[in-house]
Amino acid sequence: MAINPYHSHLGKNAANHTALSPLSFLDRAADVYPTHSSVIYGEKQFLWQQTRERCTRLGSALSKIGIGKNHTVAIMAPNIPPMYEAHFGVPSCGAVLNSINTRLDAVTVAFILEHSEARVLIADTEYSATVAAALATLNNPPIVIDIEDTSHGDRLGTIEYEEFLQTGDPDFQWITPEDEWDAISLNYTSGTTGNPKGVVYHHRGAYLNALSNITGWEMANHPRYLWTLPMFHCNGWCFPWSLAAIAGVSVCSRGVTGAGIFDAIKHHRVTHLCGAPIVLGMIINTDAAQQFTLDYPVKVMTAAAPPPAPILQSMEDLGFHMTHVYGLTETYGPAVMCAWKTEWDTQGAEDRAQLKSRQGVRYQVLESLAVLDPVTMQAVPRDGTTVGEIMFSGNIVMKGYFKNPEETDRAFEGGWFHSGDLAVMDPDGYLRITDRSKDVIISGGENISSIEIESTLYAHPDVLEAAVVAMPDEKWGETPCAFVTLKEQAQASEKDLITWCRDKMAHFKCPSRVVFTELPKTSTGKVQKFRLREQLPNK
Amino acid sequence: MAINPYHSHLGKNAANHTALSPLSFLDRAADVYPTHSSVIYGEKQFLWQQTRERCTRLGSALSKIGIGKNHTVAIMAPNIPPMYEAHFGVPSCGAVLNSINTRLDAVTVAFILEHSEARVLIADTEYSATVAAALATLNNPPIVIDIEDTSHGDRLGTIEYEEFLQTGDPDFQWITPEDEWDAISLNYTSGTTGNPKGVVYHHRGAYLNALSNITGWEMANHPRYLWTLPMFHCNGWCFPWSLAAIAGVSVCSRGVTGAGIFDAIKHHRVTHLCGAPIVLGMIINTDAAQQFTLDYPVKVMTAAAPPPAPILQSMEDLGFHMTHVYGLTETYGPAVMCAWKTEWDTQGAEDRAQLKSRQGVRYQVLESLAVLDPVTMQAVPRDGTTVGEIMFSGNIVMKGYFKNPEETDRAFEGGWFHSGDLAVMDPDGYLRITDRSKDVIISGGENISSIEIESTLYAHPDVLEAAVVAMPDEKWGETPCAFVTLKEQAQASEKDLITWCRDKMAHFKCPSRVVFTELPKTSTGKVQKFRLREQLPNK
Repeated sequence: MAINPYHSHLGKNAANHTALSPLSFLDRAADVYPTHSSVIYGEKQFLWQQTRERCTRLGSALSKIGIGKNHTVAIMAPNIPPMYEAHFGVPSCGAVLNSINTRLDAVTVAFILEHSEARVLIADTEYSATVAAALATLNNPPIVIDIEDTSHGDRLGTIEYEEFLQTGDPDFQWITPEDEWDAISLNYTSGTTGNPKGVVYHHRGAYLNALSNITGWEMANHPRYLWTLPMFHCNGWCFPWSLAAIAGVSVCSRGVTGAGIFDAIKHHRVTHLCGAPIVLGMIINTDAAQQFTLDYPVKVMTAAAPPPAPILQSMEDLGFHMTHVYGLTETYGPAVMCAWKTEWDTQGAEDRAQLKSRQGVRYQVLESLAVLDPVTMQAVPRDGTTVGEIMFSGNIVMKGYFKNPEETDRAFEGGWFHSGDLAVMDPDGYLRITDRSKDVIISGGENISSIEIESTLYAHPDVLEAAVVAMPDEKWGETPCAFVTLKEQAQASEKDLITWCRDKMAHFKCPSRVVFTELPKTSTGKVQKFRLREQLPNK
Repeated sequence: MAINPYHSHLGKNAANHTALSPLSFLDRAADVYPTHSSVIYGEKQFLWQQTRERCTRLGSALSKIGIGKNHTVAIMAPNIPPMYEAHFGVPSCGAVLNSINTRLDAVTVAFILEHSEARVLIADTEYSATVAAALATLNNPPIVIDIEDTSHGDRLGTIEYEEFLQTGDPDFQWITPEDEWDAISLNYTSGTTGNPKGVVYHHRGAYLNALSNITGWEMANHPRYLWTLPMFHCNGWCFPWSLAAIAGVSVCSRGVTGAGIFDAIKHHRVTHLCGAPIVLGMIINTDAAQQFTLDYPVKVMTAAAPPPAPILQSMEDLGFHMTHVYGLTETYGPAVMCAWKTEWDTQGAEDRAQLKSRQGVRYQVLESLAVLDPVTMQAVPRDGTTVGEIMFSGNIVMKGYFKNPEETDRAFEGGWFHSGDLAVMDPDGYLRITDRSKDVIISGGENISSIEIESTLYAHPDVLEAAVVAMPDEKWGETPCAFVTLKEQAQASEKDLITWCRDKMAHFKCPSRVVFTELPKTSTGKVQKFRLREQLPNK
């Protein structure tokens, strides 16, 4: 049989095929917009041609000390220019970027450095104490490059970041991936139990999710993006790469405060920012003297925990335009979006917030998103009540867990990535998270969503933050116990809040206890419910 | 030596890898926006769930008659719903879409049908005479499916398109590509000499350029896109797929007129349209009774020939927002864009139009764009005067020419796609086309750009259209000869126009003759200069 002509002499060659890599976005930004702002940090302001030069020097300097393809380069830095540059400079020599959460303790940092086999660690001296303690425990510590910015921690390495850049060649030829499946970064999950797992991203996924952030959030060219989301979190949800693709400005800062956010909006005309609900809380609770209602809309993307409707509402009242996304480290950050429909505009404020607090639908570049029964792997009905596990498939799902074949296989069982998050599917095909599998409260055989209770508590005017966990109960098996932080000067009592809940929810769902306390959080702002379980009151 | 851990157990699987295909955009649009408008055509209006169903039925119906992977399905239709549906329905059964230019003659149509090995031809009865004549010459004519829309041409097939859809299963499982390098479409170039060449696109390129249209043109969700650009032209520059990705509305019509465009803007609040300068000419020259200044900006993307600055200016004066792009059939349509810079906003109108008439910089998903000396393959200096050939490399360059290894190899020589277009590179990295290689006029050893002369002529208030070709000259080798169409009631003489040019250009560049005539055009609106050369006056 003759060969099909579509299979004849129509193959890949240098002219018609290139491995996808977000590095190409930096090159284009610097070619097309060489003198436009790329990164702003305090008094410093870089242009795209400078950012490309600095990233190229970084790649070259790393290359000169023997770093290349599939070598790990770790970084521990706040949202400052070197952190942005690392997202291009490290891959530009073929290496893999391992951003380490700056809030981790020395033991965990040591675990990550050892497990990732990092050959180089670029570390801001703010974290010297932690880093020194971590390095002390390692047999093969990485080469350390210190970032001496405004902090005055100890120098641990032999060279400072800016000096190191000077050793690099500005004309260094990038080592772009031969295969877009090559690793670009390694991000350790902030597990609440057990050792963190190393999630490996490839150039292809980074490229595609960078574009999908733009199309999904309807971003025009030259956004002025404020870094409130830590770049160490899923590579800043791929936004360092998105911003290069559309020549946006990164407004950097070492730390995030409500006043700082309003200040940046005032001075830099910020157009976009991302953040967990903790950031929204900062904004809403900013001192009246520093807070103001915006005179143009600032777009905010929020994720991490389902934002309670009252918080979404308060943000909109201040003039922020909220978009709710959902994803995991394993899905390059956001992979699900509560795509807004104009027909919802006419609904009441509360209904709108309720609609928006749902997780939503798949990103344009995510192939499939489903809520499946994890046993039968069948989709749950679109009834808004049947709970299943959220599963993903597509090009923005990780390569796998680094050096962890068992967990990788478990995560990909049945051809889907298992998120571990439970959700229902609403009749309109928007999914709504009910809980992490392990956070469901089972009381008298009924599943109770901790999130539903938390949302009810958040609606109380005195409540600043709330988290609900299961408390063992002789009669019911479990009952909900609420941990609550009140706003300053607020007075609500345990009884007040229980009554508030009983007025609004089925009684079996109401917390039987309310404990007033600060909520322990992971470094990415998620409430650490396992800690709360350790603090359960004796009933 | 131990295997690098990044190469261990981090491979592709069903959960983390899918072949890129624009089919996925249709699925998402129908899932997320099932009841939003997808296609509007006169009184007909389809929703996304209906468009998905119709495309799925088309794929199924084709599959039932034996069409599958790597089979060619041709279509000859105006910009009506079946044409849009073919962009998804045909690939959904694994087949390759071959859209045939509806303005071609029977001999060329027959050549294409035979060369493409089309097994099915979906044809609007408007073209029955041509199609019948073409089919009569074929040994193995394709199965014909007639579209009986508003035209009353002869039925040539045994089944009508709507009936054919009814034979399809709405639950048909799409045959998505196993490899994103698989062919999705086959587009024959409208060559000015010789047989047309069949340009093969793959799913990967279609997907990427669909996204790049969105990011490059800064398109938000739900654009209302008027089909003035023929969909048979480079698959409508990939916009059928872009529109699915952002759930935009396709406003269809069988033909394009200036009055029709203004009417569509009035009734459908069109936000975007694309077109060659001929479409711009229609808009500008619309009767005053039907023309109006827009009360909101309509974005227009134009290409095909470098739009003369005065035309760009007239469009902007009417309220259209112009974006100038450039590309070839071989680059999935637009692959180069005159990316606008806000700092140009403050320039004078003429300077702005001049800046905008340049072709510009590469699309976000195009890897490399260069102006090279075709002999040395070295980049020309960025001096705005040294002429070289425009070359492309990247993922939106065709797979190659169908059944034409020699032309494919020639096109890709040296690892670049050779466009055949000549350009200079301006100091800011924006390229500017000077001519097709064969359109350069060489007079007394000097290269003269026909485009420069044409632009000068277009600036004359009496000139509607102008094209310049080389005329043999005993003394100088060649001199420019201009062919001009005057506006209605305009009076300019040959002498007036030559004087006009001599006032504005070096004298050796000025036309030595001006011929007043209608300009012959290709079916895609390009002036057929070879025809003009046949009409050169005896000097």
